[in-house]
Amino acid sequence: MTGKMMEKSCSGFAAELAAKQSVPGGGGAAAYVGALSVALCSMVGNFTTGKKKYAEYEADVQRMLEEGEAVRARLLELVEEDAAAFFPLSQAYGIPKEDPTREEQLEKCTKDALVAPLEMMRQIAKAIELLEEMNVKGSRMLVSDVGCGAACAAAAMQAASLNVFVNTKTLNDRDFAERAEAEADGLLTYVSRAQRIVDEVTAGIRAL
Amino acid sequence: MTGKMMEKSCSGFAAELAAKQSVPGGGGAAAYVGALSVALCSMVGNFTTGKKKYAEYEADVQRMLEEGEAVRARLLELVEEDAAAFFPLSQAYGIPKEDPTREEQLEKCTKDALVAPLEMMRQIAKAIELLEEMNVKGSRMLVSDVGCGAACAAAAMQAASLNVFVNTKTLNDRDFAERAEAEADGLLTYVSRAQRIVDEVTAGIRAL
Repeated sequence: MTGKMMEKSCSGFAAELAAKQSVPGGGGAAAYVGALSVALCSMVGNFTTGKKKYAEYEADVQRMLEEGEAVRARLLELVEEDAAAFFPLSQAYGIPKEDPTREEQLEKCTKDALVAPLEMMRQIAKAIELLEEMNVKGSRMLVSDVGCGAACAAAAMQAASLNVFVNTKTLNDRDFAERAEAEADGLLTYVSRAQRIVDEVTAGIRAL
Repeated sequence: MTGKMMEKSCSGFAAELAAKQSVPGGGGAAAYVGALSVALCSMVGNFTTGKKKYAEYEADVQRMLEEGEAVRARLLELVEEDAAAFFPLSQAYGIPKEDPTREEQLEKCTKDALVAPLEMMRQIAKAIELLEEMNVKGSRMLVSDVGCGAACAAAAMQAASLNVFVNTKTLNDRDFAERAEAEADGLLTYVSRAQRIVDEVTAGIRAL
């Protein structure tokens, strides 16, 4: 990893994702796809605000725009945080098996490596709540963008959860692992909520 | 739109997606998320190639790497093609209702605007086929990245399809519209194939 991931060009980020380097990987992709999902929600809000037809929702749309901006910024940061936490873990895997500190170092780095994916899941849950509300209050002209955002949010949530579970599974501290898994399981219920938006938007468009 | 979308920084692309401008929108996000999905497949291939343990698959992995590169490049191009086709459509919507050429121009621009999303769907289907094969032949160390790629591919396919249907629905040429919808429906069967990979990978990791 050189410099900040999110300052790379889109084509450059995709190329680095494809390359033989652990970072960026599935975790970084999850956070960035989450950021795109909430960006689509914000686009719908930006086309709704100020419109007479949606005047009754103006205050809500303004609030959603502020919240969406914060969630997007946080998810972009999490791409970097995920990458930063992965490097020490990959180094710990390289510690010789006979080193008596190996297990302890691996345990610590693995715990650190699941902090970012779990925080991604919390932020993506917020994105899904915003998309649900935007699906009700946003301009109907952009309903397909709400659906695209919801599809991306569902994928981001699933991808982030894989990066939680792949770490919890190798922990010796089962209490810590089970708490993280329980939180992840709770957040995974948002996947079907996002999918419900996709299905509703798709059905609405197809019924036109 | 200024310059090439995919040369923008990742944070800049997300900001433009969120802004009050029609392009980039859900179509561009679909193509880019599709490109990230196949990039993750390529990463797994790049960590598999040359490994003794997977020597029996070496030729297949090499082929998948080549195909993955092509699909990624094509999806990145489609972000630009989608943006380029959208601009004339947005202009056509601005033609005064009393202009006798309005309907004809709208029809033509709408047909043009669904070419890119439909081609995205074809490319994302190839990405899903590659992910299915990589899930069998790729290094098990990176199975979570196959799962993340599959989740992104499912989302990209659904998002691209919304951008097909939102255009077919307004066409007067019902023959053209129905052919496009039939092809999109066929390609949408890949969503459950991608979701099957996600479910299988998730179950595998959770059973560790």
